Amino acid sequence: MGYLEGINSPDDIKKLNDEELSALADEIRNFLIYKVSKTGGHLASNLGVVELTLAIHKIFQTDSDQVVWDVGHQSYVHKIITGRKDEFDTLRKLGGLAGFPKTCESRHDCFNTGHSSTSISAALGIARARDLMKENYSVIAVIGDGAMTGGLAYEALNDAARYTSNFIVILNDNEMSIAQNVGGMSRYLSKLRTDPFYTKTKEDIENFLDRMPKFSKKAKRVISKLKGTVKYIFTPGVFFEQLGYKYYGPVDGHNIEEISKALIAAKKIKGPVLVHINTQKGKGYSFAEESPDRFHGIAPFEVETGETHGSSVPDYSEVFGDTMCTLAASDERIVAISAAMAKGTGLFRFSNEFQGRFFDVGIAEQHAVTSAAGMAVKGLIPIVAIYSSFLQRAYDQIIHDVATQNLHVIFGVDRAGIVGEDGETHQGVFDLSFLSHIPNLTVMAPADYYELRQMLDYAVNGQKGPIAVRYPRGRGKECLGQRIPLEAGKSAIVKKGEKVCVLAAGSMVDTALQAAEILMGSDIDIQVVSARFIKPLDEDLILKIADEFNYIITLEDNSRSGGFGSKVLEFLNQKGINRNISILGLPDEFITHGSRAELLKILGLDAEALAERIKNLF
Amino acid sequence: MGYLEGINSPDDIKKLNDEELSALADEIRNFLIYKVSKTGGHLASNLGVVELTLAIHKIFQTDSDQVVWDVGHQSYVHKIITGRKDEFDTLRKLGGLAGFPKTCESRHDCFNTGHSSTSISAALGIARARDLMKENYSVIAVIGDGAMTGGLAYEALNDAARYTSNFIVILNDNEMSIAQNVGGMSRYLSKLRTDPFYTKTKEDIENFLDRMPKFSKKAKRVISKLKGTVKYIFTPGVFFEQLGYKYYGPVDGHNIEEISKALIAAKKIKGPVLVHINTQKGKGYSFAEESPDRFHGIAPFEVETGETHGSSVPDYSEVFGDTMCTLAASDERIVAISAAMAKGTGLFRFSNEFQGRFFDVGIAEQHAVTSAAGMAVKGLIPIVAIYSSFLQRAYDQIIHDVATQNLHVIFGVDRAGIVGEDGETHQGVFDLSFLSHIPNLTVMAPADYYELRQMLDYAVNGQKGPIAVRYPRGRGKECLGQRIPLEAGKSAIVKKGEKVCVLAAGSMVDTALQAAEILMGSDIDIQVVSARFIKPLDEDLILKIADEFNYIITLEDNSRSGGFGSKVLEFLNQKGINRNISILGLPDEFITHGSRAELLKILGLDAEALAERIKNLF
Repeated sequence: MGYLEGINSPDDIKKLNDEELSALADEIRNFLIYKVSKTGGHLASNLGVVELTLAIHKIFQTDSDQVVWDVGHQSYVHKIITGRKDEFDTLRKLGGLAGFPKTCESRHDCFNTGHSSTSISAALGIARARDLMKENYSVIAVIGDGAMTGGLAYEALNDAARYTSNFIVILNDNEMSIAQNVGGMSRYLSKLRTDPFYTKTKEDIENFLDRMPKFSKKAKRVISKLKGTVKYIFTPGVFFEQLGYKYYGPVDGHNIEEISKALIAAKKIKGPVLVHINTQKGKGYSFAEESPDRFHGIAPFEVETGETHGSSVPDYSEVFGDTMCTLAASDERIVAISAAMAKGTGLFRFSNEFQGRFFDVGIAEQHAVTSAAGMAVKGLIPIVAIYSSFLQRAYDQIIHDVATQNLHVIFGVDRAGIVGEDGETHQGVFDLSFLSHIPNLTVMAPADYYELRQMLDYAVNGQKGPIAVRYPRGRGKECLGQRIPLEAGKSAIVKKGEKVCVLAAGSMVDTALQAAEILMGSDIDIQVVSARFIKPLDEDLILKIADEFNYIITLEDNSRSGGFGSKVLEFLNQKGINRNISILGLPDEFITHGSRAELLKILGLDAEALAERIKNLF
Repeated sequence: MGYLEGINSPDDIKKLNDEELSALADEIRNFLIYKVSKTGGHLASNLGVVELTLAIHKIFQTDSDQVVWDVGHQSYVHKIITGRKDEFDTLRKLGGLAGFPKTCESRHDCFNTGHSSTSISAALGIARARDLMKENYSVIAVIGDGAMTGGLAYEALNDAARYTSNFIVILNDNEMSIAQNVGGMSRYLSKLRTDPFYTKTKEDIENFLDRMPKFSKKAKRVISKLKGTVKYIFTPGVFFEQLGYKYYGPVDGHNIEEISKALIAAKKIKGPVLVHINTQKGKGYSFAEESPDRFHGIAPFEVETGETHGSSVPDYSEVFGDTMCTLAASDERIVAISAAMAKGTGLFRFSNEFQGRFFDVGIAEQHAVTSAAGMAVKGLIPIVAIYSSFLQRAYDQIIHDVATQNLHVIFGVDRAGIVGEDGETHQGVFDLSFLSHIPNLTVMAPADYYELRQMLDYAVNGQKGPIAVRYPRGRGKECLGQRIPLEAGKSAIVKKGEKVCVLAAGSMVDTALQAAEILMGSDIDIQVVSARFIKPLDEDLILKIADEFNYIITLEDNSRSGGFGSKVLEFLNQKGINRNISILGLPDEFITHGSRAELLKILGLDAEALAERIKNLF
């Protein structure tokens, strides 16, 4: 029997002393390891913030004080404390607890997060609202050093610097994004952690100046100036102090007493404060300490071994990464860029095999794209691999820096379509809509690994100008039909049939083929086309299909609004062909968390639903 | 006879000594003032960088060395020097010289710009390409302190900090964005400019330490440490030095000799260098010195008086701003946010009348939107006013921070549609496409000032949830027809007619009415509808029109792809109504600079073209 059982709200935290809280921290770690080993989820980051979260709940009242968790995948401990611990078996499952903060789940969650680097900005908005409404509570942004590489965080940090009311930024420094952190800020923080100069010299110098003979008025003046600035100079956070922040730290992020002291001090400051907390990602679980990036977001695993029940079949990201390695081996102009996701995007092998040609730019999607444009003007062929939902952040850069100049930049749009367990903020369901109206851009979607390889080869060797290839999360099939070589702008008929033609985009080709199989039992023989090119459309084939088939169905796991089907419809209308087509895709709403299969079923986009719909046509 | 006449390429610059260059600088200023007074354009920023640009051309070879001009509106001097001075009468005119760098214009322009804060990122890409291709040239980003408030600049600054080859960032510090600059970074830079502590104390202290008695080993050690750090501490650019940059400055940006010295030194450094140049926006033209923001982007003006040939009729931005003032006066929850564009967006009056409720967050569109989301969760009603093409940069924040939480944030989308003289990068021709697939978002477009006022009132009082109102650049009419009060989700029939119905979005309603007038001569009596709501559509009216009219035309100054017409088509298809509609809008290409009227004519979107097209239906 421990303390955890008795923790049903943050009030229960406030009853415990620091020693008891430390014991509770151990229990929470065991709870997290056990629960996440069953459900999968974000483990390493949560293990790192156990003491920090306990200290926050000791010092603040999160139902009145406002804590914005940057990214939000580190909010599990907060969820455990705020009355949601009994729901952890449902974590990230359909209808269950979300993997990110959700205002609809608890009054202790004040702002939904999911993407990186939003917390300071949102918190500053909340703080300004507090002032205008003459209310009185603390506002705290909890942000990792990885998220600090994102431009949005800096925009807010800069704006908040002139803010005059209390405003607390907790910098949770674990020297990691998802992988190891990069850039000047990271190096600076690392210096703060380790440079004994900062922590030891200050006192020496102060003592020395006190004992110094004041042999002239000028000497006296200079010594006094020196003393006044020594404090300032040897404050480790001079970077933040210069920007306008009061700096506390670095604080041992696994010592509740120390964190609490810093938070109490921070609470009293007029104006912006930065509390720099050092934590260890994966803390307390040896496998996660050793491989924090593997345990960042992890599938269910064995607690004893740290091993996941993985399949040895590669997923789309791996096929993408391996193909890039093959292509890069025969063309020195190929370089790859990742926004802190070398592993997630499958570029880890590339980053090892082509070290000088791989650039992890930090959680900085905008810069990833614009720097790629810079590379392309000088003749390199950059491949930028970013998840669909994160590429939303580089929409302007794709238009403004790449497409207007018609530069040969290739976008590997990973996690396109329904991604599942990460929910609303991570579904890649808008990329066809936001990419396909951009002039000069070619947009492709592979139905299987064979097509993905062909498309990447085409993207590198087949044409100039910007090209996006969007592919889903998880595993696909090697080849769904015959190996039909890719031709510029051409779709592929994967299965011949009659009366009904399903024009499917990417991962939905497999769904269409499964529906075709179901329908065989009803003697309905549909045709299935892998669109391959979303932009430009295969106009010849679409005209032919319009001519030959009674029913045309388009199928995509993108918003129906402005997506693939919409483009087919626009084209037919433009050609004066006025006929009904069924545009099947995602509705005009945000899509919750759950497994991909469950969500597609609910949305009427699985093979059974498609088959049923086609049956009803007859 | 002066020097300017003989300047036909950068080689001619290199023949002049510093005194001659100073005289040339004066001539260039006169040239700029005279030419821009005729054409309109960006004046103040160019007057500020005359000496800087001359020094760059003295030290570098811009056809091999690569200079990326951030934003690019300050590239006129560069254009004058690089063989384009005789084209200045065509500046920003159709087929003429662009107002921004253009690789197609000159081999001295290495990267197109237009939006803020891209230069360091693009330059870093170029530098990395240089290394991989084993080439040897300098790469220079010229960025203003205003552009340094943009997150993309910081993302790149952070990434470049660990770069090991020569890389030069010239910080052109004029203490301004378009208006006065804001935030912690700005305050820091301002301190560098003015704090005598930095420039005077350093020598005092070094002398003092030299003369200090070394009375013990420890004292010796401490003195030595102090000396080692005094250099570091009293270097003004400690912020940048901490990040990893070698810092030079501040340098008098109107002294060619001083700038040249700094650039020569910077050229020799391995790794990233920041050269901090102080300039005065508007330098050398008293009216521009006094009101640099008025002379940022200015219409043709009288050189002697500095007065523009303005009309007293308000433009859309002013009507927007005035309406916001009226609304804010009766509802304390209303606050306004601008990304360094208080004047441009018409919020200047608001910023004065409601000081505590106006937030200029810097050139930081992402943070503008996310901080608005923070305000909205606490019950304020934030209005975010951003130009259409700049709002592209906050696409993810609109989705992720505002729309997923269905927050009551209002977007004033200014400069929507064809903006004209600023060209490709500034045309607001994608907003209907990138906004109208976002769940929960309402999108409206007013046809006249009356509708704009009604829509803003509706946005504040009529519904909750996110709302975007998009309106064009320049002047509109008070009311195009009868004053039909706005109803939620309802379009307005502005002119009744038969057979042909033109469903027009916003500014194109006027065009449709003009076409109707032209057609009266041919006895064709068309109906004109102001769509008002782009999302959700007025479905009832569209169904009625589909039933009653032989021809339906949709009209918008947005890309045809995924825009208003496309949504109407999607809706009709979904309802099983298979009929042809003419979707008139912008083609799938970037639209060059020229006057709005000229461009619309070329694109077949003026009243004459529309009337002609309708005639041809019969």
